[in-house]
Amino acid sequence: MNIILASTSTIFGGEYLEYLKEELIELYTGIDEIIFVPFARPGGISHTDYTVKARSFFETINIRVKGLHEFEDKTEALNNAKGYFTGGGNTFLLVKTLHEENLMEVLKNNVISGKAYLGCSAGSNIGGRNMKTTNDMPIVYPPSFDCMGLVPFNINPHYLDPNPDLKHNGETRETRIKEFLTQNDIKVIGLREGNWIRRTGDRITVEGTELTRIFEKDKEPYEIEAGSTL
Amino acid sequence: MNIILASTSTIFGGEYLEYLKEELIELYTGIDEIIFVPFARPGGISHTDYTVKARSFFETINIRVKGLHEFEDKTEALNNAKGYFTGGGNTFLLVKTLHEENLMEVLKNNVISGKAYLGCSAGSNIGGRNMKTTNDMPIVYPPSFDCMGLVPFNINPHYLDPNPDLKHNGETRETRIKEFLTQNDIKVIGLREGNWIRRTGDRITVEGTELTRIFEKDKEPYEIEAGSTL
Repeated sequence: MNIILASTSTIFGGEYLEYLKEELIELYTGIDEIIFVPFARPGGISHTDYTVKARSFFETINIRVKGLHEFEDKTEALNNAKGYFTGGGNTFLLVKTLHEENLMEVLKNNVISGKAYLGCSAGSNIGGRNMKTTNDMPIVYPPSFDCMGLVPFNINPHYLDPNPDLKHNGETRETRIKEFLTQNDIKVIGLREGNWIRRTGDRITVEGTELTRIFEKDKEPYEIEAGSTL
Repeated sequence: MNIILASTSTIFGGEYLEYLKEELIELYTGIDEIIFVPFARPGGISHTDYTVKARSFFETINIRVKGLHEFEDKTEALNNAKGYFTGGGNTFLLVKTLHEENLMEVLKNNVISGKAYLGCSAGSNIGGRNMKTTNDMPIVYPPSFDCMGLVPFNINPHYLDPNPDLKHNGETRETRIKEFLTQNDIKVIGLREGNWIRRTGDRITVEGTELTRIFEKDKEPYEIEAGSTL
């Protein structure tokens, strides 16, 4: 496999996908066109507007972008493509759309066969075993929470450390992930912004500028450095 | 109806339910025993431990508390009770359990008949039309997101204003609720900590120490003062 699952598309103060530019040139080596999956619709923007946004970055690295929504036969489009990018937004909306159009398995099989895949945020969530560690609001009801399982764990994108100054009683991210582990025995990768997971064949590492926080059932959470295998 | 739906059980620096004490004495007038619904299990604590926590507050106002999990026949227990309290925690876990045990409708019918109901956080979410505006992580998959609809809108408990200092690319609460409104035409009450919704018969007001932020489809969000009708 040849995969990047990134915490975020954009780091604070940066431009869209800019911080990943060198990585993406390597990920998509030899590919001049990819399919963009726009179904997560951040802020409710249209599939077309979202595709335009993705396209504006990828033209800087000489890769054409086609939006998956543009195709009559989306299964055929995925099967014919050489690479993919699934953008962030609302994971519930993304997963509902992929399941309802029977595309989750199609995308999965193509990525498992070795085609390049980039996910950001919600697009990274669907690379995990299921979407039960998303941060998103459940604005629609998907027929299943199951995802592609391109990696043998779950991802929590935009992982955020507790803010000790916040006078607020809502759960911290860590509390939420620990609640997940009371109901599920699946490792969770707390992926801070600036970090990404890189899978090349069977080798899975975490990369980026920050430490990564790992949560496992019946264990204290722990931190690993960039370059560590997962 | 006779209902309180509170943003939170505990305000910063306070004790469990303490800030609502006078309101709860009024809500439960003439009642010396209630049923506690512990299924949201905050932090994954047991039904028994959670019930002990609720009991420790209610004994200060001379109300006995029985945990719903203690009953063999939970439908009968709900039908025989005079009042209810559903505690906060994980809304997905709460809604899944209520639906799987066919208790959502039973609880709803009893509350509609006029029996006193208190919800906090997840327990307030289930008073709304559905749970699609919860902040919680989807750690389990409920058979439906539908809730009791004790009020004709949805609630976002622990409503939190954007923090302009945060160098983080995750969605703000307002962004999430606006995404909900792209997919649903249901009013959302952004209920800040310290506030609650009070329904007495047909009259529904918002109460507490803070302004309340209201979100409606195709409208700019706006703020209303405590005492306003909803």
